[in-house]
This record gives sequence, C-alpha cells and structure tokens, in this order.
Amino acid sequence: MGNKVVVKVDSKVSVCIEEFIRLLVACGMPKEDVNLIHTNGENMEELIKDINPKMTLFTGSKRIAEKLSQLLSGRIKIEDAGFDWKILGPDVHDIDYIASVADQDAYCLSGQKCSAQSLLFVHKNWSDAKFISKIKELAEQRSYKNGTLSPIMTVTNQTILNHIDNVLKIPGAQILFGGKPVTEQHSIPDCYGSFKPTAVFVPLKAFTNKKYFEVITTEIFGPFQIVTEYTDKELDSVLEVMDNLDQQLTAAVVSNNIPFINKVLSHSCNGVTYAGVRARTTGAPQNHWFGPCGDPRAGGIGTPEAIKLVWSSHREIIMDTNPPTVKKVVQV
Amino acid sequence: MGNKVVVKVDSKVSVCIEEFIRLLVACGMPKEDVNLIHTNGENMEELIKDINPKMTLFTGSKRIAEKLSQLLSGRIKIEDAGFDWKILGPDVHDIDYIASVADQDAYCLSGQKCSAQSLLFVHKNWSDAKFISKIKELAEQRSYKNGTLSPIMTVTNQTILNHIDNVLKIPGAQILFGGKPVTEQHSIPDCYGSFKPTAVFVPLKAFTNKKYFEVITTEIFGPFQIVTEYTDKELDSVLEVMDNLDQQLTAAVVSNNIPFINKVLSHSCNGVTYAGVRARTTGAPQNHWFGPCGDPRAGGIGTPEAIKLVWSSHREIIMDTNPPTVKKVVQV
Amino acid sequence: MGNKVVVKVDSKVSVCIEEFIRLLVACGMPKEDVNLIHTNGENMEELIKDINPKMTLFTGSKRIAEKLSQLLSGRIKIEDAGFDWKILGPDVHDIDYIASVADQDAYCLSGQKCSAQSLLFVHKNWSDAKFISKIKELAEQRSYKNGTLSPIMTVTNQTILNHIDNVLKIPGAQILFGGKPVTEQHSIPDCYGSFKPTAVFVPLKAFTNKKYFEVITTEIFGPFQIVTEYTDKELDSVLEVMDNLDQQLTAAVVSNNIPFINKVLSHSCNGVTYAGVRARTTGAPQNHWFGPCGDPRAGGIGTPEAIKLVWSSHREIIMDTNPPTVKKVVQV
Amino acid sequence: MGNKVVVKVDSKVSVCIEEFIRLLVACGMPKEDVNLIHTNGENMEELIKDINPKMTLFTGSKRIAEKLSQLLSGRIKIEDAGFDWKILGPDVHDIDYIASVADQDAYCLSGQKCSAQSLLFVHKNWSDAKFISKIKELAEQRSYKNGTLSPIMTVTNQTILNHIDNVLKIPGAQILFGGKPVTEQHSIPDCYGSFKPTAVFVPLKAFTNKKYFEVITTEIFGPFQIVTEYTDKELDSVLEVMDNLDQQLTAAVVSNNIPFINKVLSHSCNGVTYAGVRARTTGAPQNHWFGPCGDPRAGGIGTPEAIKLVWSSHREIIMDTNPPTVKKVVQV
Repeated sequence: MGNKVVVKVDSKVSVCIEEFIRLLVACGMPKEDVNLIHTNGENMEELIKDINPKMTLFTGSKRIAEKLSQLLSGRIKIEDAGFDWKILGPDVHDIDYIASVADQDAYCLSGQKCSAQSLLFVHKNWSDAKFISKIKELAEQRSYKNGTLSPIMTVTNQTILNHIDNVLKIPGAQILFGGKPVTEQHSIPDCYGSFKPTAVFVPLKAFTNKKYFEVITTEIFGPFQIVTEYTDKELDSVLEVMDNLDQQLTAAVVSNNIPFINKVLSHSCNGVTYAGVRARTTGAPQNHWFGPCGDPRAGGIGTPEAIKLVWSSHREIIMDTNPPTVKKVVQV
Repeated sequence: MGNKVVVKVDSKVSVCIEEFIRLLVACGMPKEDVNLIHTNGENMEELIKDINPKMTLFTGSKRIAEKLSQLLSGRIKIEDAGFDWKILGPDVHDIDYIASVADQDAYCLSGQKCSAQSLLFVHKNWSDAKFISKIKELAEQRSYKNGTLSPIMTVTNQTILNHIDNVLKIPGAQILFGGKPVTEQHSIPDCYGSFKPTAVFVPLKAFTNKKYFEVITTEIFGPFQIVTEYTDKELDSVLEVMDNLDQQLTAAVVSNNIPFINKVLSHSCNGVTYAGVRARTTGAPQNHWFGPCGDPRAGGIGTPEAIKLVWSSHREIIMDTNPPTVKKVVQV
Repeated sequence: MGNKVVVKVDSKVSVCIEEFIRLLVACGMPKEDVNLIHTNGENMEELIKDINPKMTLFTGSKRIAEKLSQLLSGRIKIEDAGFDWKILGPDVHDIDYIASVADQDAYCLSGQKCSAQSLLFVHKNWSDAKFISKIKELAEQRSYKNGTLSPIMTVTNQTILNHIDNVLKIPGAQILFGGKPVTEQHSIPDCYGSFKPTAVFVPLKAFTNKKYFEVITTEIFGPFQIVTEYTDKELDSVLEVMDNLDQQLTAAVVSNNIPFINKVLSHSCNGVTYAGVRARTTGAPQNHWFGPCGDPRAGGIGTPEAIKLVWSSHREIIMDTNPPTVKKVVQV
Repeated sequence: MGNKVVVKVDSKVSVCIEEFIRLLVACGMPKEDVNLIHTNGENMEELIKDINPKMTLFTGSKRIAEKLSQLLSGRIKIEDAGFDWKILGPDVHDIDYIASVADQDAYCLSGQKCSAQSLLFVHKNWSDAKFISKIKELAEQRSYKNGTLSPIMTVTNQTILNHIDNVLKIPGAQILFGGKPVTEQHSIPDCYGSFKPTAVFVPLKAFTNKKYFEVITTEIFGPFQIVTEYTDKELDSVLEVMDNLDQQLTAAVVSNNIPFINKVLSHSCNGVTYAGVRARTTGAPQNHWFGPCGDPRAGGIGTPEAIKLVWSSHREIIMDTNPPTVKKVVQV
C-alpha cells in the first residue's frame, strides 16, 4: 500500500524476522522500504511515544494489545490471540477424521498457535460414541521422537501445573488425559516448557460462575484444552458462553446439520469461523481473510481486502471540474 | 446494520434529536431500536465505563475525540471537526463564482460547520486579480436582517477577540475585514457570539514557526478564517503546512490545471477533498462518503460503504462441508 | 442507465403495459423517456430492420429468441422461457410443506409462469413416503370457484390433449392425475385453455432416447408437468438429463443434505437455482438476480447488477494527464 | 475460469500459437486443457456447426465477426478491429512529445495493430503550430535499415495504392506524405506489402457525404492514416463523425483542457479511450481492460473483470435451508 513500516517482533524470535527481511532484500525489495528494530517492550514504548506512528498493526496477546491501544490512543489494528472454541454438533459421523482434526487443532506445535483449539464443546451424542477416547489415543501417540511434540517457548511446566490445579478446584472438573510433564528423555531447559498434551473436563454449568469462568478461559499458549459436554437442551447455555468470551479469533462448528450450523453462526461473532464436517480452528482452507471480529480495532491479514482495511483508509476525492453554470452561488 | 444504538448529543441541542427520533417513531421505527439519553459529558463518561460499548461513533471536537479514545481503549470511530483549507491554484478564471463559493464556505451559518473553510491559500495571481476585495465585499453584505448571519452557539465575542489578538502578534499579520462584533441591532445574549465575518492575513513563512503554527491553526467554530498567499515557488512550503495539520476532514483545490491538482492531491491526505474549478469545502455534490482520512479511527457517514465501515466488521465464515476424502489428517 | 427504450409487448397484453406506462408518467417519468408501440411480430421485425437497435432485451419463448438473435446479429440479451426442473433429494422431511410448494410451483396461475415447475425428479424415498398422492390431493382441490385455477391464455385444451397423447406413447408413461379439460362450469371460450392440473409419469430411462427426450421436454405454458423417479444409483443419469436441457432458467434442489446439494449444483448450470428444504422454482426469496445461465446472451432482471449487465457496457477510460517526462517516445 | 477451449488462429500465424501452447505445456499446463486446430475458415465453419460451442471469443475483422455472429446465433464475444481516432484539443503544448506519440500510434509495426491510429482530428491551433511537418519528419526517418519499418502481412502495395486513389477523388483531399511503395532495397515478396508511412488529408466536410464517408473509413491494416482539421466551431461536426463510426475499439483525446476532455468523452463511446496530454491509441498504460464498447457482444481482454465477462456468466444460487415455519404455503 506504499506505507513505510517499522517492524518490531518479540526479542525471542527477532532473529527470524531479520533473516526474512534479508531474504526480501535478496529478492529485490528496496532496502529503505522497511525499518527493523531489535529491542524489548520498554524501549519500543518510548520509541512509539517519540515517533507517534499513524497506524500500528499488533499481533500478540490481549494484554499488550490493550496497553498499546492506550499508548496509541486507538490508532491500532489488532490481530490478537484467541481462546478459540470448537463445537461438535448433534450429527455424529466421520469420527476418526474429526478426532484427528481435533488432535491437530489442539496439540500441533504443542498448541502454540493463536488459532489453537482451547475449548471443545462436545455434544452428548459424540461422548456416547467414545470421541474422548479417540482423541486421548491420538494425543498419547505424540512424542519428541516421532516429531509430533515441540518445546513450549513461552510457558513453563510449573505455570501449566498451577493452571491445572486451579481448574481442578472447580466442582466436577477432572483430567481427561495428560496433566504431567513429558517423561520421555529430552534436553529442553527449564526456562521452556515440556508438557504432555492435556485435556481437562469442566461441567458446562461451571461456566456460569464468574470466578470459575475466568479460570476456565485463561489462555495457556501450550498443549492444553478445556473440554465440556452439552445436550440439545443446553445449546442456549453454550451460545451464552461463546458470547461471554471476548477473544474472538477463530472458531469451528463441526456439523453438516444446516439448522444447527445456522443457529450457532448467527449467535456467535468470532472472526475466522469454519463450519461443516471438516471444520477446524487452525490451518484450514488457505488464502482467506484471517482476523478477529466484533471490535472496530480488529485487523486482518492474508487477502487484498485485509491489507486495504489495515494499511489504507477511505479518501473521498470529488472532481468538480465542469465550468460553473451560474455567476454566483446563492447566499444563505 | 442491526446494531442497537444509544444516542447522546450535546445538551444544547439534545432537544432537536429528541424531536427527530419522535419523527422516526411516527414514521414506523420500532421504539426499542434506539435509546436516547439527555445528559452531560461527565455522566455519559460514567455510563460508558459501566456499559463498555462495543463501538462508539463520535462526531465533535478533536479534544473530546482523544479523551473518548482513551476511555474506550480505541473502540471508536471518529468524524471530528476540521481545520479545513482551500487552495486557489495558479489559473485565474470564474472569479465572481469562486469568490461567492469562498464566502459561503467560510461564513454560511456564521462558519458553524465542521467543514467550514478555516484556512485559505491564495495564489499570487488571484491576489493580483483583486480576489480579496471580492470576498470582502460579499462578507460585508451579510447581516441578521437579510438572513445571512447567525448567532454563534459555542464561541463568545470575547473568545474571538482574544484569538484575533493572538494572531495579530505574528509579524506581518493583519485584519483583512471584519474583526469586530456585529453593530447591527440584535437580541443575541452575551453567552452566545455575534461577530462580523472576519478574515486575518498571516504570511506563509509564519507557519514554519511552531509557536505561531499552533495559534494560526486553532479552530474557531464561528465566522473566522485565516488567509495567506503563495507563489509558484512556495507551493512546496504550502504542501508542508497541509501535511502538518492533523485535522484532516475536508479540503478544496480550486483549479482546473491538471498537474497542479495532481500535485496537491498526491501530497495531502484530507478526507473529503473537492478538486476543480467548482471545488468547495462544504455542501458540495451530495450523497458521497463524508469523513476524515489518514487515521485508523476515521469514520465516515453518508454512503453504504461508510455505514458498513463504521457499524459492521469483516467476519470470515468458511463452509467446509464436503465429505472428508481421507480417514485421518496427517499428524505433525 | 440513461438508454432510451422502445417497448413492444405481445399484442394480447399490450393494453396492460400502456396502463403501466401511464402510471409511470403520472408518477413523474418524462414522457420522452420511453416509446411504446402496439403492433404484431411481423411489423416489429420490419421496424427492427429499419432502426437497427444497439441492444434488445427479449423475454419470451426460445423460438422467438433464436429468430431475433439472427435478425439482430446477436445484439440481444435473452431472459427466455424455461423447462424448469425440481429434484427431491434422498432426505425426506417436511412432506406437507414441500408438497404444497410443488403444487404452487406447477399449478399456480395454471402454470403460466416462465419459472413454473415443468419436470419433477422424485427420489424413491419420497415415492415410498406417498409424495405423489399428496400433490394429487392438492391439485384436485383447485377450481375456478375457489380462485385457484386460471384460464390458459396461449394453449388450447386440444394442444394439451395432443401433447399428453404423444407422451403416453412412451413405454411406461402414465397419467398420475388430471389429463382432462375442467368439467366445472365456466365461460372460458375455446380459443383459450381450461385444463385440469395434470402430471404425467415418464420412466427415467426414456430420457435417454433422443426422440422421447424431445417429446418429454416440450414446454406447455399451462398446468402440466412431467414426473419421474430415481434412486441413489441413478443420480448420474438425472444429472445427464439436466445437462441435456437447453432452457436453463430456474431450478430447485429440495434437500438439506449438503453433499447432495453440492453434487447437483456443481453438475448443473441453470440460472436461478434454489437449494435447501424450502427450495422452489418460482416466487422464492425476492429481490435477487433473475435470469438464465450458460449462454453469453443470457440477461437478467431485478438487481442493479442485472440492470448494468443488460443496459450498460464496460468502457475503459484511462486518464493520462501527467506532463511527459521525456521529449520524445522511443521509435520502434 | 475452468472452460475447455478450442483455439483456432489465422493460418498465416498458426505456427506461432502452436509454439506458445508448447511453452504453456512446458510450464506445466495439463495437455488436455486446450485443443489447438490448424485449419482454414471454411473447415472451421463446418466444425462450429458440428460442435455448437457454448461461447466463442473472436478477435479479428468486423466482417468475419458479423458472419460468426450469424453462425453462432449471437453466442459470441467480439474484440474486433477498429478504425481508431485521435483528436488533438485546442491547447497546444509538448508538441515534440505528442508528434512522436502520433508517429508511433500510426506507423509502429507499419500500422499493423488493431489499435493503430487510423484517423487524426487536428485542431487548427496545432496546424498553425506546424504539427503536420513534425509528424512528416518523423515518418520519413522510418526505414527497414534502422528497424522502424515492417513488411505488411495482409495488404499489398496495390491495395494501398488503389485505396489512396479512391480517397484522392474526394474534393480537397491530398497526400501529406508517403503515398508510395518503399524504394529502399529489400527482399519482401509482392504477396506482402512494403509501403511508406502515409497520411492523406481529407476536409472535415467530406465526412458528411455518405459515399465519401465509406471510403474514408475503410480500414487499411498498414502504415496509413487519414488526417483532417477542425476549429472550435466545428467540434460538434467532429463528434458526429465519431458517433457514425461503428468500429469503436480505441480512441485518444490529446488535451489537458478539462471541459474539452469531458465534452469529447461524454459524446463518444469507444472502448479503450485514453485522455490527457499523454493520450495515445495504442500501447498505453498496461494492465487495463482492453476491448470495444457500445455493443452487447463486446468482449474484453486483459483484466480479471474482462475474463469473467467473457468466460463466465452470472448464476444465482439461493440457499433456502431454514426449516419451514408453516406446514403449508397458502394456495393461490
């Protein structure tokens, strides 16, 4: 769009973006098109105050997004982390396929994706069809050795253990699988995480308790998900839970039942929402608009429309070049 | 767009919006579609904190816009006041017509329009053609009696007089016409303004002085404009002045010289910009997008696109309903 | 779009359009915006040869559409009659509702709509659920007395009887209901039709015989439909029949089974196609684009896009007004 | 767009398209995506009758376009040859630049482009500024030796000489330059043309004579143009000439005078029209829509919109999947 950009990424991974920019330059990008700065948050905050940028695109946690919104007085577009949910509808079919997608959505890259599945609403028909044991079986096959587990960059084992403890204090809560650090031999230092793919069950009614709700919906940027169960009669309670979440990045409605899909879609407002038997929360059909919804600061990536929304602004130019047909306009 | 709206307008004119909403109801609008609240700014601030609205559209002064941006953490669209400029290009023609448009833009409704002409860049060719005496003549014909002057709702005579004093301290500044309260008999009380249409000349070079710049660009929501002059050689200085203004609502490029129009348009970024011999800052061709530009919080009014930009948000729904063609997705 | 239009309608109903144009004039349409001509086809043909119109929009039968295409050398858009089909998918539900829609689609206004249901593909599951007896029951309730039957303007009873005779020569064909002139007392003269709502069953395999195919797909602009039956295994044969039809105005896929809907939609190319449990061939959700598909001459009505497609044309104007940056362009 | 295409090009150059398709296949195009046929027009006509293609895109002469329109009953899009005009407006400037563009537009590739400048309207101001002698000088520098002349593929010297003879019979017509075969030594055989860049002047008033008009507007696919002159008072006559032309592919309005540009653009309807001081009839700003206008059969090339217009068709699919809210629809 012709904007000159200053890029700042988290210092842990800043080395990657430098290499990427070197690649762009090698491919012909003029060197003066991008500024890259390696720094920490405190220094960047000072820099922002100094240069007062016209627009900032932020990708990252909700907490920092709010801090920057204040600092920039709202001149920001946000593509933040999400506490993304998936709901399995009343129609049970293709159970092996759907279990493997759920396993991917929750535990691929050890759950370190902004679109990872953090909350799973399971219709009772799926519980009856032994869906939980299917995803348990898949999760337990993950290991460093076969390349399906990753070190956890930003959450330690202790943090995850503490969070599990908190969730387990909710009446009816229980670990479905995982819940422990990986025992397989590895060389990951303690400042990073090395945790088993974990699912904790919480009864649906616990979500109506405000204190529990906050615990349940705390995001862990690792291989961790909350699972709950609902019946046809409880669908409205599920929709209320969805409405109370305020991190609305991605969602998945796994069903081919048209009235069910329509009801859930029309009562939720997550950004990127996949619907249908193949719905997932992450890594779905490529090349679509990707971003949250329901917030005027919501920014998107990945399509011409998203780029224009974030990096451009409507400007109305009215050409009024025809010769005047009167000598004076009427005075009022 | 289906949003339920709470309307709050300035308490001085809140009675008007109530009548308008009564009209809407009389025309068939369901009563529950809009909430109207009569209140002052302090109370409204408390209310906003309480209800935490998803989106706020604000029309009004830059100062309050910034305050609300902080309060709402950026969940706001702004269609704020402007310090709107007009530039007369090197090609002189249709002088009576253009003088009458300038008179309307600056003094219609005694200048109480967010799109009023506050700053006029006059090419030397126009000065030589006696443009100033043309607009002086028109301004001096305005009176309460012939219905071309209005009471000033939000600025007192004293405020305007003080501002003129400040501007006149700038070397080279001088009153072109007006500069005094209306002497014609009237019954407007002192808490409102009753001032003659006024133009004060300031030399272009004064704009480069940061202190002077702030004085010059202080908006008076009344019948007041700054006039300056430039030559072909000074066009780049004019463009710099335009770029330094941060209230970019409307603008007018009065010229049919194509390279001149292109140069000014491509070096400025006001929102609603009229270009051509009939360009004006206000009340131009109807039914177009109206709003500022160059700020991610910029909101527009007046077209389907503007309504969608402000009251809606991109939501990406991907239907992925075809039967799976594999039993499991590959694990990574 | 600014075009000046000459309107010619069938002489039987030309009196109606005259009244409508008088209404437009009474509402303020300038009299010179439209020319109306009352005449027959032969005279209109001569007129067209004389004035050589830039564009003609034709609504009517396929035969006349082809004649006009030749006469106008293709400067025509066509929104012609259709031999419109409906298919009932494998999922049986809402049988009373769907029967009543089918009755409306086939026999409303005694079938005198370009979008009337002319061919009904019934999945065996629906036959087993007694769907035919449902629509028979509804058809037999139609009468002049209760206002659900109309005189037939362009087809006589004899023409319909001859057509039925021809269809019944196909092995396996049989009358499902109707098949006779109305016996109820009425005053419709013989030059118009007065026929009972009629359905004739033809086995699916008869469609593969080219001679039978032509008989089966002859359109009767009256209360007449062909019904056939298919099983899951025979769906591909059904799709082939759809593909062989060359009057592709409307169609309906009555099913909420997503893979079924997708398969039928992706193997057919009718213009206005309704899909889902509430699908119909006629009078469905209003204010959408209406027209055939699959022909570069296809024209639409009813939306801004349709109006632009028919009455406008892409014109590319490139403004190249910037001053030359070289004295001469390089010669090649 | 997914269509399977049969390609047929003029047998003189069919060898080129074969090589191009071989290139596409080498780049990965599946071999079954395109059919290429080497044949003459007579055989192709038989083939078209046999296969009855759904759509044909034709690029070539107007005569064949009309023949194919009949054969295909209008199922065709046309991007035909043009008798393209350029008009020089009243404002004279950048004369060397504009002369060199005119030379390129008329004589580049010896005028063998569908967008070549065939008719030049010269405002008297330009004649007075010696524009004709400028383009004469440039034309006379063209030679085989310096690579600025080409053999003429489809027109012989005799054909051009005959045409010049016909034009010169018009009262007031005269050769401005050229008018003879190239005398420079070359090895071009007689079945091809080898002619000097030629301009013939015809008075504007000759265009109103119907017989002369046909002679003047006969297209020569070679280095030949008609030149005429007009004054301000004669602009309306010029616009009438433009309106009478029926090959409306490209046009150029060389002027930066806004009212002049607006008047010519709003009274003409050529397809690709360049306006402004840098306007040309050929090889202008790249990557825009290219095609004629003012004919429902007009097809374009070069942009996504053009591809969709030609190779696709609006299809309206209405999903009506919500459960019925009534048991039966009301019978009428």
